[in-house]
Amino acid sequence: MEKKIITISREFGSGGRTIGHKVAERLGIPFYDKELVNQVALESGFAPKFVEEHGEHSPSSSLFSYAFAPQGVPGVMNGLSTADFLWNIQCNVILQLAEKGPCVIVGRCGNYALRSINDVTDLFICANMEDRIHRIMERYHFSEKDAINAIHSTDKRRKHYYENYTHQKWGSIDSHQMLLNVSRLGMDRTVEIIKQLYNH
Amino acid sequence: MEKKIITISREFGSGGRTIGHKVAERLGIPFYDKELVNQVALESGFAPKFVEEHGEHSPSSSLFSYAFAPQGVPGVMNGLSTADFLWNIQCNVILQLAEKGPCVIVGRCGNYALRSINDVTDLFICANMEDRIHRIMERYHFSEKDAINAIHSTDKRRKHYYENYTHQKWGSIDSHQMLLNVSRLGMDRTVEIIKQLYNH
Repeated sequence: MEKKIITISREFGSGGRTIGHKVAERLGIPFYDKELVNQVALESGFAPKFVEEHGEHSPSSSLFSYAFAPQGVPGVMNGLSTADFLWNIQCNVILQLAEKGPCVIVGRCGNYALRSINDVTDLFICANMEDRIHRIMERYHFSEKDAINAIHSTDKRRKHYYENYTHQKWGSIDSHQMLLNVSRLGMDRTVEIIKQLYNH
Repeated sequence: MEKKIITISREFGSGGRTIGHKVAERLGIPFYDKELVNQVALESGFAPKFVEEHGEHSPSSSLFSYAFAPQGVPGVMNGLSTADFLWNIQCNVILQLAEKGPCVIVGRCGNYALRSINDVTDLFICANMEDRIHRIMERYHFSEKDAINAIHSTDKRRKHYYENYTHQKWGSIDSHQMLLNVSRLGMDRTVEIIKQLYNH
């Protein structure tokens, strides 16, 4: 079975998630987001909202401890911190979803979880600060100041999470096949380029 | 007239020049390298070898002074340092070549010289250190130590030259549409991707 997978990592506010969604829609392949979260929630015993918030940027493992241990699954964490426990399940779920066939996976270190799989197109999406601020202000009805703060803190947490688990540099070309600058390419051309990368 | 231009900047030893050459060959469009150098030499009065060596990495303008002023063209530098004089001519020659029609231009801040032109595909090619060392050792019959030194010093000079004239960060996604990692993509797939980018 063909297993062409697109993984998209992205700067906060770059539009990477929207791009991933559009690519999946145009290619007629699944876009894993909620389904991934729900599956991790199911397998871990954590609430979906908790998985959604902590599957890309957990606080450091040592602080995160066992305070949020899932109810009804005693002993299941095998001495792992909550963050490490979630990480393991998330990697397994990503591998299972990729096994099903072609798909788009945004964030959650998908590129790293699938590093042993062939036929993965592994992209990182960037945009300039002005465009990102504008996008976040519009999307979340934030002030400019709040948008800037949200960008800095979200990127910082994503970077910490990614580097902690993958030992690769976040947002660096060393960690991906390609980096794409949406501010220079435009949203439509970026979607079109990724579609082409998949098709050829 | 259609003016689809591909500009390729690259890390030393990444194979960016070879990739540019292959892309041009497969697309049947000119690859400007020697011709660009010869044209700059002709218009500046400098020897082609001098232009080749200093068109991407001049020493700092203040040190570079007028010691190499071309013979037979007195006063033509209008009080500019040799480096600035060469830079101006090089930018003009790149613009003239781009005006002629589709082409591939490698290095020489081509992306910056053509920043006001539409339909430019502006790429930066990277590779991991191991591959670059291997490539340089093979190409120039260097020892590993010499290859490493050549990579560090050439990249440093390219970076200095690029940042001095463009005020953009060298090798950063902020300065280009896309960064491509040849070590992850492979040389053939990189060539194919650029060909696709051009055709669509």
